[in-house]
Amino acid sequence: MLSFESDYIQGAHEKILQRLVETNMEALPGYGSDKYCESAKEKIRQACDCEEAEIFFLTGGTQTNEIIIGTMLAPYEGVIAAKTGHVSVHEAGAIEHTGHKVLELPQHDGKLDAKEVQQYLKTFWEDGNHEHMVFPGMVYISHPTEYGTLYTKAELEELADICRSYQIPLFLDGARLGYGLMSNDTDVTLPMIAGCCDVFYIGGTKVGALCGEAVVFPKRNMPKHFLTMVKQNGALLAKGRLLGVQFDTLFTDDLYYRISKHAIEMAEDLKRLFREKGYRFYLDSPTNQQFIILEDSQMQKLQQEVAFSFWEKYDESHTVVRFATSWATTEEDIERLGKLLIF
Amino acid sequence: MLSFESDYIQGAHEKILQRLVETNMEALPGYGSDKYCESAKEKIRQACDCEEAEIFFLTGGTQTNEIIIGTMLAPYEGVIAAKTGHVSVHEAGAIEHTGHKVLELPQHDGKLDAKEVQQYLKTFWEDGNHEHMVFPGMVYISHPTEYGTLYTKAELEELADICRSYQIPLFLDGARLGYGLMSNDTDVTLPMIAGCCDVFYIGGTKVGALCGEAVVFPKRNMPKHFLTMVKQNGALLAKGRLLGVQFDTLFTDDLYYRISKHAIEMAEDLKRLFREKGYRFYLDSPTNQQFIILEDSQMQKLQQEVAFSFWEKYDESHTVVRFATSWATTEEDIERLGKLLIF
Amino acid sequence: MLSFESDYIQGAHEKILQRLVETNMEALPGYGSDKYCESAKEKIRQACDCEEAEIFFLTGGTQTNEIIIGTMLAPYEGVIAAKTGHVSVHEAGAIEHTGHKVLELPQHDGKLDAKEVQQYLKTFWEDGNHEHMVFPGMVYISHPTEYGTLYTKAELEELADICRSYQIPLFLDGARLGYGLMSNDTDVTLPMIAGCCDVFYIGGTKVGALCGEAVVFPKRNMPKHFLTMVKQNGALLAKGRLLGVQFDTLFTDDLYYRISKHAIEMAEDLKRLFREKGYRFYLDSPTNQQFIILEDSQMQKLQQEVAFSFWEKYDESHTVVRFATSWATTEEDIERLGKLLIF
Amino acid sequence: MLSFESDYIQGAHEKILQRLVETNMEALPGYGSDKYCESAKEKIRQACDCEEAEIFFLTGGTQTNEIIIGTMLAPYEGVIAAKTGHVSVHEAGAIEHTGHKVLELPQHDGKLDAKEVQQYLKTFWEDGNHEHMVFPGMVYISHPTEYGTLYTKAELEELADICRSYQIPLFLDGARLGYGLMSNDTDVTLPMIAGCCDVFYIGGTKVGALCGEAVVFPKRNMPKHFLTMVKQNGALLAKGRLLGVQFDTLFTDDLYYRISKHAIEMAEDLKRLFREKGYRFYLDSPTNQQFIILEDSQMQKLQQEVAFSFWEKYDESHTVVRFATSWATTEEDIERLGKLLIF
Repeated sequence: MLSFESDYIQGAHEKILQRLVETNMEALPGYGSDKYCESAKEKIRQACDCEEAEIFFLTGGTQTNEIIIGTMLAPYEGVIAAKTGHVSVHEAGAIEHTGHKVLELPQHDGKLDAKEVQQYLKTFWEDGNHEHMVFPGMVYISHPTEYGTLYTKAELEELADICRSYQIPLFLDGARLGYGLMSNDTDVTLPMIAGCCDVFYIGGTKVGALCGEAVVFPKRNMPKHFLTMVKQNGALLAKGRLLGVQFDTLFTDDLYYRISKHAIEMAEDLKRLFREKGYRFYLDSPTNQQFIILEDSQMQKLQQEVAFSFWEKYDESHTVVRFATSWATTEEDIERLGKLLIF
Repeated sequence: MLSFESDYIQGAHEKILQRLVETNMEALPGYGSDKYCESAKEKIRQACDCEEAEIFFLTGGTQTNEIIIGTMLAPYEGVIAAKTGHVSVHEAGAIEHTGHKVLELPQHDGKLDAKEVQQYLKTFWEDGNHEHMVFPGMVYISHPTEYGTLYTKAELEELADICRSYQIPLFLDGARLGYGLMSNDTDVTLPMIAGCCDVFYIGGTKVGALCGEAVVFPKRNMPKHFLTMVKQNGALLAKGRLLGVQFDTLFTDDLYYRISKHAIEMAEDLKRLFREKGYRFYLDSPTNQQFIILEDSQMQKLQQEVAFSFWEKYDESHTVVRFATSWATTEEDIERLGKLLIF
Repeated sequence: MLSFESDYIQGAHEKILQRLVETNMEALPGYGSDKYCESAKEKIRQACDCEEAEIFFLTGGTQTNEIIIGTMLAPYEGVIAAKTGHVSVHEAGAIEHTGHKVLELPQHDGKLDAKEVQQYLKTFWEDGNHEHMVFPGMVYISHPTEYGTLYTKAELEELADICRSYQIPLFLDGARLGYGLMSNDTDVTLPMIAGCCDVFYIGGTKVGALCGEAVVFPKRNMPKHFLTMVKQNGALLAKGRLLGVQFDTLFTDDLYYRISKHAIEMAEDLKRLFREKGYRFYLDSPTNQQFIILEDSQMQKLQQEVAFSFWEKYDESHTVVRFATSWATTEEDIERLGKLLIF
Repeated sequence: MLSFESDYIQGAHEKILQRLVETNMEALPGYGSDKYCESAKEKIRQACDCEEAEIFFLTGGTQTNEIIIGTMLAPYEGVIAAKTGHVSVHEAGAIEHTGHKVLELPQHDGKLDAKEVQQYLKTFWEDGNHEHMVFPGMVYISHPTEYGTLYTKAELEELADICRSYQIPLFLDGARLGYGLMSNDTDVTLPMIAGCCDVFYIGGTKVGALCGEAVVFPKRNMPKHFLTMVKQNGALLAKGRLLGVQFDTLFTDDLYYRISKHAIEMAEDLKRLFREKGYRFYLDSPTNQQFIILEDSQMQKLQQEVAFSFWEKYDESHTVVRFATSWATTEEDIERLGKLLIF
């Protein structure tokens, strides 16, 4: 069946598999100390234009979020996030499992508003009772957000300024970062992110890899003995090469950008289709996730031919659904979808 | 360089890579709900001769140990393990990170002694003060152990009886299970383990997979909402197919057994070599890990030509080192080693 | 200075101190196994009209909340609470420190709305993605709430019905329970609470004791090995008599009710004063905490003569403040306050 | 019945109760910010001859141990302790509950051997695999130990030197510190402890208080936002005065020393009794806990007249038991015991 259900329904980009096959029988040291991890790190440093960046490869998004938050916060601190942030709602309480509260602020198309963040911080520190409360110790944003939206360069810089003035790190969850960077409607670049953020990750799982996220600490601020804490969290792969080879491939010949770009082109084609057929968009997303409002009977009919995700009820008779493109979406997929939309 | 450093220095068995390539572009649902995971589970149930076994795929050994122990123990319980157990010494405190104490008992060539386990449990429950102590809530054994040794069928059954009489689960860490099952010197089978143990895992990472451990709950005793707790621990892969395809391949046409058998044959050849040259063994291991006592200058010389692991100091001038074979060790590797041992 | 700052500014009721002095040199066993603890438990069982209630004495409110929530929830569960619930905002993240999320719902004068709780539970279980979310595993209410308000019998019963139908416990935080039970405006009794709730506590710290909260499990549902978990949380007093003697005294000759009643009378006098002088109430509280809206310059003037608590900004030029009476408030205190309110 | 069961069977020294009564109705701010807490801290600073010491009052020993260890260790660190250390065996896993491993070393009459500590640290840092292990991050000692024994000044200094050279804190559990300081056989003083240790506490619960331990950070090294972390652990008393008044009284007119001295005199009398009657001592304790080896039938007979603690089985027919004196033991108690020992 035709599927736009998510950006992780296929395996890996063929180049990645090819490199895994080619390097398979080399005897390499374990736990991320192999030459492919080193090479991948160096290429990412260059892509970030940040020579001193420290980089660590982890397996998936929730794991990465909980390890970053769990190791960078003091016990008395929590993390500010939008109410719709992945860490707030879709990680089964992984953040709280590390002992930290997610301090929810309102979301605006999935984004935090810098002014509201600032107000929250100001109010906290002015409260005479704040020693009995959870200290805001980090700001978490996702980019693209869970709604496919993007921060502008100006918005990121404003958040970074606020974080700097309150001396708390800004953490950017880039599980779908490629699709954000290659959007037609962004002025944000990887070096800019490395400049603004205190920690961020470049998502692999949803952008062409079998698994893997590349965590970047751009300011020589990787927590002390990070590897040991990763091990303690059960997240250190014995065969670290699995992540090294994948990221080394993704950052060779701009593969990461090229496949992300392709997903964006497919998303633009998909948007055009829906727009032409008169469908309503729930919001305007410039990346690979598109949110459409379907009348319920229409939705049920469509579901028989194409897979997509339920997002939320819109009203009594309508539903918001998500169509996701990815590096693996083909022009033929879009064409087939187009034919199904004829009503 | 020739390497016997560990059993995770190469990638995966070629059949596994081949299947990953073949299935790569299929659109599959995420989080372990795909057909390859289902097929792998069914094959493992058959291999265990346990139709009702519940199976869950995780990524690596430490992760598996901490999730099993963390989800099966009550907060007031700890886990009994040999002083040399992996959970005691080489997991960076992962078990304590879940809030549970490792209750160390003496080791005998890496194994627990059933009588000592029984005595410990008896003493605990007779102690009038036991409410102020950590309740022994599980027995952890590794098979093969960290020293390559194996429990006999009788020993396993005795441990199982003791656990049953104290109503605590027996957990077998099978990170290297294949090498144990295919040893020339064992009467333990997979169905027997499924009968004795309350939970165990079949290691993939060290037996031919890129990553992956198959956790088996043979008694319909998988903790409630286990998937959610795995997610909460950051251990749920979006592309669960990565584990499903690998285990499906390992349990097709006895691949898991065949490659394990090969490693055992290589280990036997290696043992013969060392024995013929008059080397001393630290202990008698019937599996793929061999522990040799080297005179220090001899060790330094050998290190220049072949990689192996430091284990521990034996005395002032001698060191215990480990040579590990694996599914990937070749006859040529053994031959080359033989030539290096001529002194 | 005259103080209405809180209900824990004095020590203990004189009868309590007297009993501590009288029993001081008796040799008693430790850890809550003494005869005063037993006697206090029996008297509380009678007051609750619940013969089979299991009772445990803890030291303070936050400690009690985190131990109850931490020991009664499964790892994948969180606790539903009003956004203004003490566990949400004023316990320094104690609940998250135990690994559990506080699932915030809107507050209505400090209370949860049963319909909203039901809707939340319904929506959660209908969500196809709920395995990736925090399971609602308990409903927490405070009675009186942080705003001094009270649930009615009907409201409590409705919440209890909902909890029962979703098989999750209803937990009532009674840090100020005496003041709720003795309100002029309530139809809720202690036996009724024991019937509706799965766990609750009778606050001592704020109602006449030096410290101490009596946790009641009315349904033979005290978590297994609760004492050991209390010890593990550092909350088991060696001299458990300190809590036993206090609660034994509070539940002798209705002392707990009588001193609570007194506080309510003082609160009613205080309300009358403010009402007569034309002050605005932030909301209508029938218990010992009264929330007044003061014009800021008026507030600053009043602060010089009497202590009260800042609650929150009302608008640019007004502030909500709290005046609390207690068992220790005297008629003279009220009179003195009356004189200060003359403007 | 005559009781030597422990040093916490009576309430508090009469002076403490008297002060609680005298100060009872004063309106004081909460959470340890009252003047009695301040005064007590100042007196303790003087007693420690350490003007810059930061002091915090907690309720009991296990609570204090877990908060100190939990807040001073990094996540990747554990605490070195003797196998018989209270944190290892009698706190229901409270330390592991905070996520940290207790790294057990051999005990010598309850004490750590400095050379063994040094060797452990040296071995750890030389191990090429130490990133996969728990980092030793603190040394815990009890003084007096669980066997009533004491470190000498030279031993403490040696431990302090080792800790300093490895840059880890030395933590002294002084739950029974008074009895150690007043022993006839010690050269250790409070100022000396403040000089050697990085954190320690002065026990109140077992030395005349109803409850309470005074934690001392002598080197301006109290963890940041310690009060918030204490609150988060449920250990912040609303009526902090309860602890303040007690320690203020204990450190007025040398009360703490005087009552400790009395307990030591009683212990010396008790030792003399046992020695004269030809009883065997399990070890030589210079403090208030005495360990006697009783023949089992003799033990059962004695138990009918006097309460004491079972410690451990000595052999088939003998048992080690503990007799504890305290500030509350009277000469009459000793005399009565003497009469019971006539056989």
